[in-house]
Amino acid sequence: MFYPNGKKYIKNYINYKNRGMNLESLINDANDYYLEMNKAVIYKKPTPIGLVDVDYKKGEIKKAFFKEKSTFDYNGIYKGKYIDFEAKESKSKTSFPLSNIHEHQIKHLRRILDHGAISFLIVNINDAYYLLKGEDLLFFIETNERKSIPISFFEKNAKKINLKIRPILDYLDAVDEVYFKERGIENGKS
Amino acid sequence: MFYPNGKKYIKNYINYKNRGMNLESLINDANDYYLEMNKAVIYKKPTPIGLVDVDYKKGEIKKAFFKEKSTFDYNGIYKGKYIDFEAKESKSKTSFPLSNIHEHQIKHLRRILDHGAISFLIVNINDAYYLLKGEDLLFFIETNERKSIPISFFEKNAKKINLKIRPILDYLDAVDEVYFKERGIENGKS
Repeated sequence: MFYPNGKKYIKNYINYKNRGMNLESLINDANDYYLEMNKAVIYKKPTPIGLVDVDYKKGEIKKAFFKEKSTFDYNGIYKGKYIDFEAKESKSKTSFPLSNIHEHQIKHLRRILDHGAISFLIVNINDAYYLLKGEDLLFFIETNERKSIPISFFEKNAKKINLKIRPILDYLDAVDEVYFKERGIENGKS
Repeated sequence: MFYPNGKKYIKNYINYKNRGMNLESLINDANDYYLEMNKAVIYKKPTPIGLVDVDYKKGEIKKAFFKEKSTFDYNGIYKGKYIDFEAKESKSKTSFPLSNIHEHQIKHLRRILDHGAISFLIVNINDAYYLLKGEDLLFFIETNERKSIPISFFEKNAKKINLKIRPILDYLDAVDEVYFKERGIENGKS
């Protein structure tokens, strides 16, 4: 197998194993790889900032604050489809608290699914990574009183993402399994 | 015709006529309208910021700077398609300087077109608004030595966006004309 910049990625892999790369780093790393391989064009949206005091001459922000997002963090295009997702790490090893997802993000999810988007959560829980379809998240919310999703729901309904050398978190592999294989579209751009 | 929040929009229109709304405001206003009407889900990406000094206890940014984008400003989903575009105001009334578009944005444009995106520029030049297809922008760059696009190129090859009451800059109307009518898809989500 041919790995351009192989050293960099093996270094990342070692860093991941030794130091614990967080979920955001793993996804950014995968997105860099997909871009390089021309497999997908997916970016993390910058965190929205409220500006209070800016020195425009120097181009320097002197006072600002973080704003809350009303969308998901990552979006882009894969196999001709609009893709839009959120990544979350669960501190609890037994369940994923729904308080991690804001109400306006659920509204956003409903909207984009209605328009034909591929949308999901990537959840890191109990040392495993799961792709949970947006439709399944909505199903859980609509049919449960519970304020957190038990790990058994992930084990039964979500797709576990296997770790690889490069990219470490090859989440588009899980996207293929969940969204494209079932439609009989395995290869190529639509 | 029924306009929810009609007053707000008529106020915007009056503001536009009297005070001159800039292109970004016009597009954000259109995107708000599309969201409200469930016509499309399109957002402006936040400006990327490089953090230098943050007081995480207070949640306050004490020093930061603006970073350069490597993508376009707006993206989302319309009629089931991934849409990704940039908006630019030209100070010159006779031509649009290509220095307005960075080299890595051109690279981004080539990538997303290759993956099946709808991508274009909205250019405000000489008191008119044009939708210039990404493919036509690339054609100009590849076949010209010129460092700016003359207005005649827009008049001949771009789609002029007509101003309306609501939204004032109904750019998806131009998207329909350019991308969907020619394919024979006039209505409905794909």
